[in-house]
Amino acid sequence: MSEYQLYCFAQSGNAYRGALMLNLIGADWKPVWYDFFGTAPQRTPEFRESVNEMGEAPVLVDNVRNKKLSQSGVILTYLSDLTGQYKPEGEDAKLEALRWIIFDNQKVNGFLGPFRFLKNFAPTPGDPAVMEFLKGRAQAALAIVNKRLEQTPFLVGDKPTIADISMTGYLYYPADEFGFDIAKDHPAIGAWLGRMKALPGWGHPYDLMPGYPFGSKPAV
Amino acid sequence: MSEYQLYCFAQSGNAYRGALMLNLIGADWKPVWYDFFGTAPQRTPEFRESVNEMGEAPVLVDNVRNKKLSQSGVILTYLSDLTGQYKPEGEDAKLEALRWIIFDNQKVNGFLGPFRFLKNFAPTPGDPAVMEFLKGRAQAALAIVNKRLEQTPFLVGDKPTIADISMTGYLYYPADEFGFDIAKDHPAIGAWLGRMKALPGWGHPYDLMPGYPFGSKPAV
Repeated sequence: MSEYQLYCFAQSGNAYRGALMLNLIGADWKPVWYDFFGTAPQRTPEFRESVNEMGEAPVLVDNVRNKKLSQSGVILTYLSDLTGQYKPEGEDAKLEALRWIIFDNQKVNGFLGPFRFLKNFAPTPGDPAVMEFLKGRAQAALAIVNKRLEQTPFLVGDKPTIADISMTGYLYYPADEFGFDIAKDHPAIGAWLGRMKALPGWGHPYDLMPGYPFGSKPAV
Repeated sequence: MSEYQLYCFAQSGNAYRGALMLNLIGADWKPVWYDFFGTAPQRTPEFRESVNEMGEAPVLVDNVRNKKLSQSGVILTYLSDLTGQYKPEGEDAKLEALRWIIFDNQKVNGFLGPFRFLKNFAPTPGDPAVMEFLKGRAQAALAIVNKRLEQTPFLVGDKPTIADISMTGYLYYPADEFGFDIAKDHPAIGAWLGRMKALPGWGHPYDLMPGYPFGSKPAV
């Protein structure tokens, strides 16, 4: 059995944060397909009881230390504390990383995720007013991230930390899944995505997680 | 000069988390009015430069240790680590508290806040489809919180922690500001709000923070 298992699915930028972290730190891990959009037992009350009461991916299972953790921000914190990798150095940097992780979860990928879900995967498409609302909120938050990345190569200074891994969330998915190009609209984010992509162990969400949703998988 | 200052305003449940924490731990603190809805200099680029690049309240200034922190989750973590109060006991509980804090920021108060803003304070009222979207997301997340609070008196077990203080966010504001009654729709949340209210030092957002927005302030 591998050291870690990650409940995840290819469409989830939230789950991607966990998958990317595990790959970047060179962990011995295996994805477990969480069929969020399907009719599989994962969405039943029993799944909520036994795996995650919040009903969300990702969920990390640490088979060695017998732990089960959900919320990507928790998983990132746990793995960086455990391994020392991508860990912000010192208390101030740790708080600064947490600041960006919460901002990301609430306002960046927190709005991009529902937008992309409603655009691509929902049983009925999102109402145009809802789509405009979510896009507006996400773009405003992305502008704040862009401004930060004009000043420092990574969110918390010169080195990549878990805050950067969190922020990648939905940002490597193809532009046509959004209808706008995040990297072009926010050039400093585009450059930073390139720096993150160059890290040893980096992988695309469609390569790291099972369940590519659009037929045969393109080269990414 | 007081030990702490908190940039806040009465309408902000996000800022309330910081104000409530400071009051519950018996801190020497003063609110600084952040005129978020006004035309005051706080919303200018200069304010973003000098106080908070994210343009949000709350911001905590620690005058003794010379620190300036934003994001309520960061402020709560900082103050509980510093004082030992409302601090989750042990690493597992700390991660569990972080799990609820991120869930709250993204899905509970993260959707309630914009809903209440669009209903009460926005220059033009929110589109009905947007209001329905935000309410639906918030109610689904509140149901998950309610289920947890049917099982334990506080979010992380038997004692209140920073996760509970975070979760109170917008939940003490009057039901007519939402058009639905959260405590009645989710009875375990209602009971928990009563337990939180009984803590020494508890205060209502309209009492702890300046700038009551609806004319003369009612008894709360």
